[in-house]
Amino acid sequence: MSDPLSTLLLDVDDLRAVIADVGLDSFMDELITELRVEIGGFDEARVEHQIRAGFNYESAEHGLVEWMPTMVVGDVVSVKTVGYHPANPTARGLPSVLATTALYDTTTGSLTTMCEATLLTALRTGAASAVLTNVLASPGPVTLGVVGCGAQAVTQIHAISRLRPIASIIATDIDNSVATTLEARLPEDIASPEIVDIDEFNARVGELSVVCTCTSVPIGKDPVVDLSLRRQDLHVNAVGADFPGKTELTIEDLHASVVIPDVVEQCLIEGEAQRLDRSELGPSMVDVLSGAAPMLVGEFTVFDSTGWSFEDLLAARLFRSHAVRLSLGTRVSLQRTPVDPYDPYESLRPSSGEVIAELRSSGDLALVRDRA
Amino acid sequence: MSDPLSTLLLDVDDLRAVIADVGLDSFMDELITELRVEIGGFDEARVEHQIRAGFNYESAEHGLVEWMPTMVVGDVVSVKTVGYHPANPTARGLPSVLATTALYDTTTGSLTTMCEATLLTALRTGAASAVLTNVLASPGPVTLGVVGCGAQAVTQIHAISRLRPIASIIATDIDNSVATTLEARLPEDIASPEIVDIDEFNARVGELSVVCTCTSVPIGKDPVVDLSLRRQDLHVNAVGADFPGKTELTIEDLHASVVIPDVVEQCLIEGEAQRLDRSELGPSMVDVLSGAAPMLVGEFTVFDSTGWSFEDLLAARLFRSHAVRLSLGTRVSLQRTPVDPYDPYESLRPSSGEVIAELRSSGDLALVRDRA
Repeated sequence: MSDPLSTLLLDVDDLRAVIADVGLDSFMDELITELRVEIGGFDEARVEHQIRAGFNYESAEHGLVEWMPTMVVGDVVSVKTVGYHPANPTARGLPSVLATTALYDTTTGSLTTMCEATLLTALRTGAASAVLTNVLASPGPVTLGVVGCGAQAVTQIHAISRLRPIASIIATDIDNSVATTLEARLPEDIASPEIVDIDEFNARVGELSVVCTCTSVPIGKDPVVDLSLRRQDLHVNAVGADFPGKTELTIEDLHASVVIPDVVEQCLIEGEAQRLDRSELGPSMVDVLSGAAPMLVGEFTVFDSTGWSFEDLLAARLFRSHAVRLSLGTRVSLQRTPVDPYDPYESLRPSSGEVIAELRSSGDLALVRDRA
Repeated sequence: MSDPLSTLLLDVDDLRAVIADVGLDSFMDELITELRVEIGGFDEARVEHQIRAGFNYESAEHGLVEWMPTMVVGDVVSVKTVGYHPANPTARGLPSVLATTALYDTTTGSLTTMCEATLLTALRTGAASAVLTNVLASPGPVTLGVVGCGAQAVTQIHAISRLRPIASIIATDIDNSVATTLEARLPEDIASPEIVDIDEFNARVGELSVVCTCTSVPIGKDPVVDLSLRRQDLHVNAVGADFPGKTELTIEDLHASVVIPDVVEQCLIEGEAQRLDRSELGPSMVDVLSGAAPMLVGEFTVFDSTGWSFEDLLAARLFRSHAVRLSLGTRVSLQRTPVDPYDPYESLRPSSGEVIAELRSSGDLALVRDRA
């Protein structure tokens, strides 16, 4: 019997085992369904969320550590912590985004789960774009453009492919060696991306029905793409803007589009919307998915995806539910149920382990608790 | 060789092993020294901290989950997450405060350490009170009063005993069964507490040179003690106030005292100082320990201890340094260094484990990284 305060650790191997059991496509499908249903039915009385906060710095190089909290009332608090260090891939062979999610039980406050969230973050970011793409892009197969061919591009393309046939992909990256390896990193049944430079991409934007921007553009180095030659009904998933000063689109494109923020207050600080006034925003992601917003198909739409803590909670919950079903994970006792909750030094006494074991086996534990 | 992204888990057993090696008294002494030196030499350019934020709720019962972040620039981000659920001890035999601390490396953003912090929180709260008591209480042995005999009382008394001889202790608790077990929970060489009811405590306040208030008083149920019969030079460590509406002292006592906040902005929201105007505050904990504040010995002083995230960083760092020295803890791979940081699905491919192992053993890993 595990301690009621034990924590379930779910690491990359556990996620790999879950996905091996469920299948990568099906896992993405389940995540897409979770986001569509839970965000479409979002209820402020049931889910509280805070915009992310964190520390950012230029020492020794540019980076940040931030946390993204959400609570399902009477159930669970989720806090995803994210490191974003754009020099990681080239300088250290590490992902630029590293994340873990912690789940806390709101009855006791205990840390019930600690899970890897780097891959989960990429998956949920893709899933969110797919859900919005399906609602906002003109019907039928999509002709997809991708700006930035790193880790996020893979899940953007994969997720969209689960809801819409992808007729073709044009992709570009400031680093050609990253662009040329994109195909090898995609699931097998997806159209081969045609790799072009940014000038050709901009010139051929009119061929595209959907564009995903997912770059690590440095602060102040926008725009990464010029959509002025677009179709009337282009839908854009703008994924890269997630920091003050870090945006991807031209201000002209932004002004011409209906901008759909995932989290209004967060987008106004660090999304594409940071360059807009609140009054210039379109309906929110919740409004679009709940049906509260008017139909936007046929219009030029930009999904301003800064990443929502509620998406992270849904992803972690899905991961956990499969892991529990498959008896995966490792239980650790970062916290420990004491015999006497008023005795902080209990665990330090040489005999405490034996005393606790003895009390538990003799059934006298309740008696000891009574004195508290 | 461990993965550069592996996380060191340090649980209650590891802390017990550290304290068994160092000794409980010496561990407390080291923590006291850390706080005295680091807070006395606090440098805003080197340490950034944010006041805590969190979710609080009344469903199913009163509780909160909150996070307390601090960064040592160019080194480490520390985020302690705390659950506070005052019904835990009586309803579930669990501590009211449950906490874990996560440390992140500011170069890569990786989660380097995850440690138990329930006991560490109690220890650092005691250490902070001891440091202030030693500077603010009149010289010589202390006659100590304790209001609230739960877990915090133990570390308050223990920590103060490390810097000052304790001549006598008078203690009171709304629950007499908690008060009567206090002695059994204290380290052995400490004066036996005399247990009294609150009326007698209030009547005998004039005997005391130091008072610690450390109750779980419900919101709006203050005050827990009346210090009007105090000595001129009484020093109070007010530990329990840590939430809007939750305070322990009478407003008259507060107005009569020099209030020393641990974190000004936090105390104005949730400390004793929440009932004061900013202009009514005395010097801060940093000012007192750095020597920037005028001498206050002989005055009626109240240390408004809401708990500072920087104290948690120092406590976790001390724990970690001893654990590393003793080769304690468990390394887990919540995160994993990929072969290709741009390939989120790398770990999901059936062959990836073997491929990575092969590449690493053949020395071709760098080659693979070059394509990124």
